[in-house]
Amino acid sequence: MSKKNYKKKDYPVEKVRRFLEPGPVILLSSAHRGRRDIMTMGWHMVMMDEPSLVGCFIWDQNYSYGLVRRSKECVINVPTVDLVDAVIRVGNSHGPEVDKFEAFGLTAVDATKVGAPLIAECHANFECKLIDTSLIKRYSLFVFEVVKAHAATSPRYPTTVHYRGDGMFMVSGRNVSYRRFFKPENL
Amino acid sequence: MSKKNYKKKDYPVEKVRRFLEPGPVILLSSAHRGRRDIMTMGWHMVMMDEPSLVGCFIWDQNYSYGLVRRSKECVINVPTVDLVDAVIRVGNSHGPEVDKFEAFGLTAVDATKVGAPLIAECHANFECKLIDTSLIKRYSLFVFEVVKAHAATSPRYPTTVHYRGDGMFMVSGRNVSYRRFFKPENL
Repeated sequence: MSKKNYKKKDYPVEKVRRFLEPGPVILLSSAHRGRRDIMTMGWHMVMMDEPSLVGCFIWDQNYSYGLVRRSKECVINVPTVDLVDAVIRVGNSHGPEVDKFEAFGLTAVDATKVGAPLIAECHANFECKLIDTSLIKRYSLFVFEVVKAHAATSPRYPTTVHYRGDGMFMVSGRNVSYRRFFKPENL
Repeated sequence: MSKKNYKKKDYPVEKVRRFLEPGPVILLSSAHRGRRDIMTMGWHMVMMDEPSLVGCFIWDQNYSYGLVRRSKECVINVPTVDLVDAVIRVGNSHGPEVDKFEAFGLTAVDATKVGAPLIAECHANFECKLIDTSLIKRYSLFVFEVVKAHAATSPRYPTTVHYRGDGMFMVSGRNVSYRRFFKPENL
């Protein structure tokens, strides 16, 4: 499957939950003092929408751990199914032995508000600041605030990949509106 | 769509991430002193696999908040797409005005290790103990340990629903194995 070349625009930071709440695998990119890394991540959670907070699990054995901890920044990138090979290869390689951008054909693009690079081939990119380090030691949990978001203008609903464990991925399926069943204040 | 009648067996607690990591909407059931509730939840995260820890966001305006906080227990139930009407109606009603089991045709079954009831019609049920209350005030984050798990023997991969916001749900799609790309230690 060929990689997409998405046209993107600014996206409201308080609405990034629309991409993250369905539970896709994400690619987390980071940089510090000339070094950079990407990691594949399945353990993340929306924690608040205003401000826009996201919790991410980064194990201390990940090369990204040190880069994120020192730079206090990252970018959360939402890949689509056309990138599944890169998603898996990133997850199965260990920085800094390889530069994962070069090795897996991903394009680093300058972010606006953080030093970590955006991954151009992803559907959406959320620039994040680390705002709470108190849960890192106990839970490897990094709490980020999304300070700037970019998302593809089309399609509205990306076809994402979701990890089931044991090498198996679920590809997101059909989208169904149940708006008619919702109370307006719950939409 | 008619509701499923799943035959279940014990499931290893350290593997519940296989159901939760893909990001499905879950139903959280709780009980305390003769009162019970169900809430629909999209904000949850695997936090550790051994012990099996799951973080869940429960807002203090949810009726379940008090029941879980006082009983220090809950059950995380994984519904499939045949239950989507109940999932939405549960999410749009507020306890204790209605008993959500009776109102939405869900069957409460006694759990083994907690007082909260299992929801029979769900594909999987994870009995949980609240093990960390220190993040409730700041983040409405409840950290649970899964102490007993039950899962349907078939199908292996449930067809779950994932919330995109604004009344729109994504239904889980096809399952694709990429085992061949994984290092054995990463499976």
